[in-house]
Amino acid sequence: MSKHIYVINPNSLIAVTAAIDQALAPLRFADGPQIHCVTLADGPAGIQTQRDVDAVVTPLCTQIARSERDAEERGGTAAAFVIACFSDPGLYSARESTDRPVLGIAECGVLTAMTLGQKFGVVSILQASIGRHWRYFASMGVTGRLAGDIAIGLSVAELADQQRTFARLCAVGEELRDRQGADVLVLGCAGMAAYRAALAEHLGMPVVDPTQAAVAMAMGQAALR
Amino acid sequence: MSKHIYVINPNSLIAVTAAIDQALAPLRFADGPQIHCVTLADGPAGIQTQRDVDAVVTPLCTQIARSERDAEERGGTAAAFVIACFSDPGLYSARESTDRPVLGIAECGVLTAMTLGQKFGVVSILQASIGRHWRYFASMGVTGRLAGDIAIGLSVAELADQQRTFARLCAVGEELRDRQGADVLVLGCAGMAAYRAALAEHLGMPVVDPTQAAVAMAMGQAALR
Amino acid sequence: MSKHIYVINPNSLIAVTAAIDQALAPLRFADGPQIHCVTLADGPAGIQTQRDVDAVVTPLCTQIARSERDAEERGGTAAAFVIACFSDPGLYSARESTDRPVLGIAECGVLTAMTLGQKFGVVSILQASIGRHWRYFASMGVTGRLAGDIAIGLSVAELADQQRTFARLCAVGEELRDRQGADVLVLGCAGMAAYRAALAEHLGMPVVDPTQAAVAMAMGQAALR
Amino acid sequence: MSKHIYVINPNSLIAVTAAIDQALAPLRFADGPQIHCVTLADGPAGIQTQRDVDAVVTPLCTQIARSERDAEERGGTAAAFVIACFSDPGLYSARESTDRPVLGIAECGVLTAMTLGQKFGVVSILQASIGRHWRYFASMGVTGRLAGDIAIGLSVAELADQQRTFARLCAVGEELRDRQGADVLVLGCAGMAAYRAALAEHLGMPVVDPTQAAVAMAMGQAALR
Amino acid sequence: MSKHIYVINPNSLIAVTAAIDQALAPLRFADGPQIHCVTLADGPAGIQTQRDVDAVVTPLCTQIARSERDAEERGGTAAAFVIACFSDPGLYSARESTDRPVLGIAECGVLTAMTLGQKFGVVSILQASIGRHWRYFASMGVTGRLAGDIAIGLSVAELADQQRTFARLCAVGEELRDRQGADVLVLGCAGMAAYRAALAEHLGMPVVDPTQAAVAMAMGQAALR
Amino acid sequence: MSKHIYVINPNSLIAVTAAIDQALAPLRFADGPQIHCVTLADGPAGIQTQRDVDAVVTPLCTQIARSERDAEERGGTAAAFVIACFSDPGLYSARESTDRPVLGIAECGVLTAMTLGQKFGVVSILQASIGRHWRYFASMGVTGRLAGDIAIGLSVAELADQQRTFARLCAVGEELRDRQGADVLVLGCAGMAAYRAALAEHLGMPVVDPTQAAVAMAMGQAALR
Repeated sequence: MSKHIYVINPNSLIAVTAAIDQALAPLRFADGPQIHCVTLADGPAGIQTQRDVDAVVTPLCTQIARSERDAEERGGTAAAFVIACFSDPGLYSARESTDRPVLGIAECGVLTAMTLGQKFGVVSILQASIGRHWRYFASMGVTGRLAGDIAIGLSVAELADQQRTFARLCAVGEELRDRQGADVLVLGCAGMAAYRAALAEHLGMPVVDPTQAAVAMAMGQAALR
Repeated sequence: MSKHIYVINPNSLIAVTAAIDQALAPLRFADGPQIHCVTLADGPAGIQTQRDVDAVVTPLCTQIARSERDAEERGGTAAAFVIACFSDPGLYSARESTDRPVLGIAECGVLTAMTLGQKFGVVSILQASIGRHWRYFASMGVTGRLAGDIAIGLSVAELADQQRTFARLCAVGEELRDRQGADVLVLGCAGMAAYRAALAEHLGMPVVDPTQAAVAMAMGQAALR
Repeated sequence: MSKHIYVINPNSLIAVTAAIDQALAPLRFADGPQIHCVTLADGPAGIQTQRDVDAVVTPLCTQIARSERDAEERGGTAAAFVIACFSDPGLYSARESTDRPVLGIAECGVLTAMTLGQKFGVVSILQASIGRHWRYFASMGVTGRLAGDIAIGLSVAELADQQRTFARLCAVGEELRDRQGADVLVLGCAGMAAYRAALAEHLGMPVVDPTQAAVAMAMGQAALR
Repeated sequence: MSKHIYVINPNSLIAVTAAIDQALAPLRFADGPQIHCVTLADGPAGIQTQRDVDAVVTPLCTQIARSERDAEERGGTAAAFVIACFSDPGLYSARESTDRPVLGIAECGVLTAMTLGQKFGVVSILQASIGRHWRYFASMGVTGRLAGDIAIGLSVAELADQQRTFARLCAVGEELRDRQGADVLVLGCAGMAAYRAALAEHLGMPVVDPTQAAVAMAMGQAALR
Repeated sequence: MSKHIYVINPNSLIAVTAAIDQALAPLRFADGPQIHCVTLADGPAGIQTQRDVDAVVTPLCTQIARSERDAEERGGTAAAFVIACFSDPGLYSARESTDRPVLGIAECGVLTAMTLGQKFGVVSILQASIGRHWRYFASMGVTGRLAGDIAIGLSVAELADQQRTFARLCAVGEELRDRQGADVLVLGCAGMAAYRAALAEHLGMPVVDPTQAAVAMAMGQAALR
Repeated sequence: MSKHIYVINPNSLIAVTAAIDQALAPLRFADGPQIHCVTLADGPAGIQTQRDVDAVVTPLCTQIARSERDAEERGGTAAAFVIACFSDPGLYSARESTDRPVLGIAECGVLTAMTLGQKFGVVSILQASIGRHWRYFASMGVTGRLAGDIAIGLSVAELADQQRTFARLCAVGEELRDRQGADVLVLGCAGMAAYRAALAEHLGMPVVDPTQAAVAMAMGQAALR
């Protein structure tokens, strides 16, 4: 019976889902679990505020149920879910909604970074998310490993300029490395995987794409069920 | 211009709202802020799961806006909001929705207990809430002060039996005091204020009703705006 | 029977007591607890060193007993005490001396700030106090929420220059906000309430006057006894 | 170019390596990284003391170099290493010895458990290991999530009796669940995977086999290089 | 110029001072610093409450000044001070009063225990001291190493019965070792040194006499000035 | 029967052992324990990497056994061991190897600093050691007291230039004091004692030589056996 992992992008931007899908190619194996990247039709254009985070919980849980049926229709089973937004929206509600493993990308990005360095830095998009991240890292019990969390502070329009985005990622990464003591970075967003390798090379330290990290952990949990 | 504090009971049980209202009598002063206890019409019968917590956020924010208008219609101003459920549902979304102070009863119950003892114990209703409480206390950064959190484990029907409920509160309080080192308790529910004084006397240590604690702190913040 | 809250200024400066008294006006209600601000006759001119802190304990406990009698003479009861010095001198001795609630302003200022932001900064007067504050915040178990503690470093004479004092408060507040990550401030002194609103407006973030915070919490505990 | 993951059993017991190899079957995919389980020829019969832990570092690093050559001889590349002993012996020396990811099973078992529950319990073999585990969890910064660590206390001979071993695992798991608050368990040994599913079913909560967890994380890191 | 270490017993019981003096014999060397055990004439009969702790600060600082003069009269210099009460009364005031090192026995007992085990247990005399100890260990930042703190709960009269006292020490030590995970104990009192060796032997783990620990550390600091 | 303390320099540099020996002169008393400084013949020229740390464990334990025999040949007993390298290599293996106390200089340097200030800074030699130090301080449970750890970053050749070395020590000490909040320093190396007094005077705050601190604590434990 085939196993299916559903990676749910809780915003409605199909381009983001496509970028996630592409980043997961190395984790697809011929006889491995099938990885499906799903856009949350009812999701907002972006998840920036706590209200966005909270508003997405109900459609997310609906999507999980829909994906479980999808897997059955494919003659298989939903083996794990990944919530592909760095705020891990609805993670605990989702875990109540299904008996399959549900993983958040922030959670898994941080835990994976903890195997790659002593102090992790987070490169966030928006300044307004940092307080939310801090609360979440505290609830995870990992603030002792946190070096810092800095926003690149670019608007959605500015993020379209890849050169400028990369320059900001480098600047923030250098600040985290040189002044805040980070020796590993986590990208604080589902859609930055394309910059990961270049950023790691530029900074000379590991950089974790949280969606890749979460899907890798999901594959382990899927395989072992 | 009159000041108004809105205490929002996020479940739909009018009896709970009435009990809260009664517990707040000592905090009402002739020329003090007016305290309004409001039942969330769209709320669930009880908030037991994380899904209940998350589902209540949107109606709660709607209620806050409605209460702001209510205060204006009374010729005054909404000066503070209290979310009267020990899961502090929607606390951070509510803070984004208004520029007035918003206080959660779990938060304020714990902070108030920290002025009354070294180690606080929590008497919860349901075993299923304890993991959620733990995450929340961790996100608040106060687990160093937590002695323990134990559920009385009574069903809604059983809670109607006041004698039995009080006996369970006493038993759990003794366990927290004698085996887990608590020297102050927090009632882990909005609707237990009627037991507070008797439980404190039985145990010989302070017991905090979180709604009273939160409204007291709200009065301070309301008065000083 | 009338309820009385005694706010004890442990230094002997009557002007400081008067400033505290004025700052508490919004917390006085016609039928609320009466708030009495008391100068400790035997207190030092200022509490700057640990020796000052320790020396004030015995007169403070004497004052508490005297205030209890004062309340009785007024035909009422002492319902709570507030120690109005940011070192919370004698807090635990005072709690042994009376069965009424005793609140420290540092304690309550910090706990109140924890409802207003993720990371609190403290604006202290003297560099020499910061180690003492740090030990105290650690004993409270709240260092995980502390952004930083910076002294304005003005002498008593310089503090008389209000413009200069405000400028230093702003400079220190900006440092705490911009480089140490504070999103809420606590004034680390009993006598700075007059600057609170202007400083909050200047910085665009909440600023807590600890004496107001403590008296608000005291009112709650007084009302509920 | 083929990718190879080497799982090094640092004790010399071939039976343990075989058990590990069998437990990893679900993580092998036709076009995935090849997983090789290697017995450390120079390793001790068991790793019980800190001296055993320290003594195994040099042969372990030698084995890593040998495995790198082995991968080249197979026309591929060593993509990640897993140290399959719950003391994570030589983890940091190994990371200095190679530029490939090196993962410890204790580390990954704990991090994976952190995605499955709030408080993890550890079922250890020997009482003497628990102090060492505690130091290690503290160095990882995760003691805030630790419920407890209890040894089953069976000798090597007794471990051969599977029924008795399973009974002890169940008893210790119940103690961790019911009295110490664990809601997820980690098996504190490389060779207990065969009990995992039955123990999880018996206890009604997730149980993590640390070697499976580490190899799953290694696959992610291998795939993404 | 001779070096002198003053060990100040802050209660007025000469018998306690004599017991301390005897316990320090192994730390006296022909050409080492001279160790003087001093009874605080103005001290209370026992230090049991926070008020006792605070009341002793001023006479303690006076005694320090007197001891400095004593050393000069002996043609030498006061090289270090030890406050021989497990509440470390006046430690920070004393450090302001002199530029010589001042060590507390609770502080040094705990720090020494941290070199002898992973988790220290404290055997206290009175239940009422435990909250105070907890605050102090938190202010020291060492609660992560604390296994537990249990009082033997004997009155002064009962303490005179050595057999009974030893039986209680053993019972409390066993509780700390077997149920709370302590692998090293600290005696929570200045006057229990005579039981140390027998208790360590009975329990099979190290037991630290805090006065010996503090004087040993004082000798180091004295020697190196 | 004479008591002997063995201070083992785990690198093979005789000049370092000689410098240690000289720094310990103030701790030698006519009738005190004899302090022997021993060079580990099989040790590396320097301990810079984790592999160096791990490689030295076996010869270190051999040396401990040899020193125990040495003490017996001198008609006495080995009373304590000190591992004189700031990475505390092999500390826990050594403790398994002997029933005498074994102390690490990093451990004792930090614990001693905790009696001299609120926040300790560490002046390290090499940047590469800082991650290792951090893990170790975390395993000790003392990161709440750590202000920062900065490397002077001089090569072995450059360290021969004493003027340059002292200038770097001063610069790093100022950074730790002025920007990271340290009020006491620990020298992060066994061989810097000669700079201690001058650095303390330059910075106006205590500076701990860790080897002196460890030997002082060892003397206490030796005396009391």
